[in-house]
Amino acid sequence: MGSVAWKQLLLNALESNSNLKHSSFMQLATIGTNGKPSNRTVVFRGFQDNTDNLQINTDARTRKIEELKLCSSAEICWYFTDSWEQFRINGNIDIIDGSNPDPIKLQQRENSWFASSVRSRMQYLEPNPGLPCLNEQPQAEITLDPSTGPVDAFCLLILEPDQVDYLNLKSNQRLTCKTSVSAAKKSWIMERVNP
Amino acid sequence: MGSVAWKQLLLNALESNSNLKHSSFMQLATIGTNGKPSNRTVVFRGFQDNTDNLQINTDARTRKIEELKLCSSAEICWYFTDSWEQFRINGNIDIIDGSNPDPIKLQQRENSWFASSVRSRMQYLEPNPGLPCLNEQPQAEITLDPSTGPVDAFCLLILEPDQVDYLNLKSNQRLTCKTSVSAAKKSWIMERVNP
Repeated sequence: MGSVAWKQLLLNALESNSNLKHSSFMQLATIGTNGKPSNRTVVFRGFQDNTDNLQINTDARTRKIEELKLCSSAEICWYFTDSWEQFRINGNIDIIDGSNPDPIKLQQRENSWFASSVRSRMQYLEPNPGLPCLNEQPQAEITLDPSTGPVDAFCLLILEPDQVDYLNLKSNQRLTCKTSVSAAKKSWIMERVNP
Repeated sequence: MGSVAWKQLLLNALESNSNLKHSSFMQLATIGTNGKPSNRTVVFRGFQDNTDNLQINTDARTRKIEELKLCSSAEICWYFTDSWEQFRINGNIDIIDGSNPDPIKLQQRENSWFASSVRSRMQYLEPNPGLPCLNEQPQAEITLDPSTGPVDAFCLLILEPDQVDYLNLKSNQRLTCKTSVSAAKKSWIMERVNP
């Protein structure tokens, strides 16, 4: 059997929108520490190995980390502007920072660090995101040896989907996919619903 | 004094991305009835009169209505793909359906109905969104007299912002704008923060 139906739809959407830089941009909603919704754009960094799990790189100093520690549930809304397809992907997020006790997860974090550009990596050396700008002078030039491993602020997020809602605005079709666990084996149930 | 700073930035972004059909598409995060985040694409339908409030049309039968009745707090994430600007707009949503007791709000709902295309309006006559498709046969042809007022399922949402986070990925600048209420007068405080 190939990959689950929604993953194949997502791979097709990525392929047909691959000419657009922003096709890997998706909106990640979490529950704020004040209980209110929180929503921001993040970049899809591929699937974890041969699973359905989505990878996202983030700065450990951003608010989403604090939020996900309190409530690991999240929903991604991913709209493809060329093919008019929307994926709503709900699941739980595992936070993998440098203090993770699992050596396999630490290796995944390191792989994700080296898979991103040196320019992307340099962001993690910049001043604390979201805090007031303390001075108007340009920061001292940041340099980073390309062979240096992940810095403290670098964090890998793994979203394990348990529900996916797919909407195609061209064909006006909508599908919901839900996980069902029986005998410890996870499977997906798909249903066509009204758009 | 002109409009608040973030509104002017948003008007500029709408102008500079107006060549793109999807520039009016934004992602609306709410709290699901199960307490988990919920996130979907909605269409910006302009500001309410001469306020900072954002208008969204929706179907009263969608899950977001049930969710907003339990928790009116929402966050919009709006990414402009041409100018590389992101607005995160947090606030409370007022639901205006046909049962609203306020005649001014009912008038706003009617205005929003007639401001949308007849094709858009016809969506509100289709089968209940999100419910299973009961038959594969095409539905009977839907017809709608263009002079007919809003149907039951048509609902206007008004989001009143109380916090806005602006990020420009070209200039790498970020601003946060928060409301402050003193002597019953609402004003905005803006601060430059690290991206």
